[in-house]
Amino acid sequence: MPTTTLFVKMILDRWYASIVNCDVLLHSLTDETLQKEIAPGKNRGIYLLGHLIAVHDDLLILLDMGEKLYPELNEPFIKSPDKTVAQLPAASELRSFWTKQSEAIKQKFENMKPEEWFEKHTAVTTEDFEKEPHRNKLNIVVTRTSHLQYHLGQLQLLK
Amino acid sequence: MPTTTLFVKMILDRWYASIVNCDVLLHSLTDETLQKEIAPGKNRGIYLLGHLIAVHDDLLILLDMGEKLYPELNEPFIKSPDKTVAQLPAASELRSFWTKQSEAIKQKFENMKPEEWFEKHTAVTTEDFEKEPHRNKLNIVVTRTSHLQYHLGQLQLLK
Repeated sequence: MPTTTLFVKMILDRWYASIVNCDVLLHSLTDETLQKEIAPGKNRGIYLLGHLIAVHDDLLILLDMGEKLYPELNEPFIKSPDKTVAQLPAASELRSFWTKQSEAIKQKFENMKPEEWFEKHTAVTTEDFEKEPHRNKLNIVVTRTSHLQYHLGQLQLLK
Repeated sequence: MPTTTLFVKMILDRWYASIVNCDVLLHSLTDETLQKEIAPGKNRGIYLLGHLIAVHDDLLILLDMGEKLYPELNEPFIKSPDKTVAQLPAASELRSFWTKQSEAIKQKFENMKPEEWFEKHTAVTTEDFEKEPHRNKLNIVVTRTSHLQYHLGQLQLLK
């Protein structure tokens, strides 16, 4: 296996495995449980789920993979902290967004050629990218996998 | 920059940044706070800190980088769940272990040539590695960074 293909596989495997971890966890939690705080005074499960979807929508933009699927989630789940927005989408709706989004991302990832992952992402200038070639599309997946794992550790506390 | 060097940098950067995240968080928490549960009935901060050190000691073994620094932590922080072991090390002691271990790991990582990261780790057979070359040393760092982020999300709740 050429090294580039191997390296991309290592990173995408970790992303997909983290998505599956989250799927399994979500299936084990009721909508009622998702309304609970992960710890007293902290974010609710439903907020973290919406936050993950909103951040993964941003990933589509950073990877130049088209429009956000749920741009309306940016305001309540990224710009606003939990418990400051009067009306959030229902847990059932967010679950459906999560599943559709993960599938859409998977399809887009599968259409990428290994070399394309080493192109610059949309938030870095051509000039900076010449000096810092690690600021490529694959690195966005690396950092967003970290972000997902961070919040997975928190969502797990709802069990 | 040769591509292999770039791959390795992307992964190690994420590891080091996660270690720094943990350092900063630990500095912001008192020893008293570390004795608290991250959520009612869940693991205590001190348990998670000991657990991370024990898991990172295992990483040294998997990467064939010499002996564990604190083998005595395996029993209380990996084999045993929290609150089942009568006497755990003091928080101050674990903090010192954490710092020394992170520094030791950094030195060992810096001594690796980029290609060496793509050699097999110690828990995979030569036969399996031929079929699954992604089971290399660098991939151990990928998965352990995920693990660290997962527990960082939990430790953060002590703030």
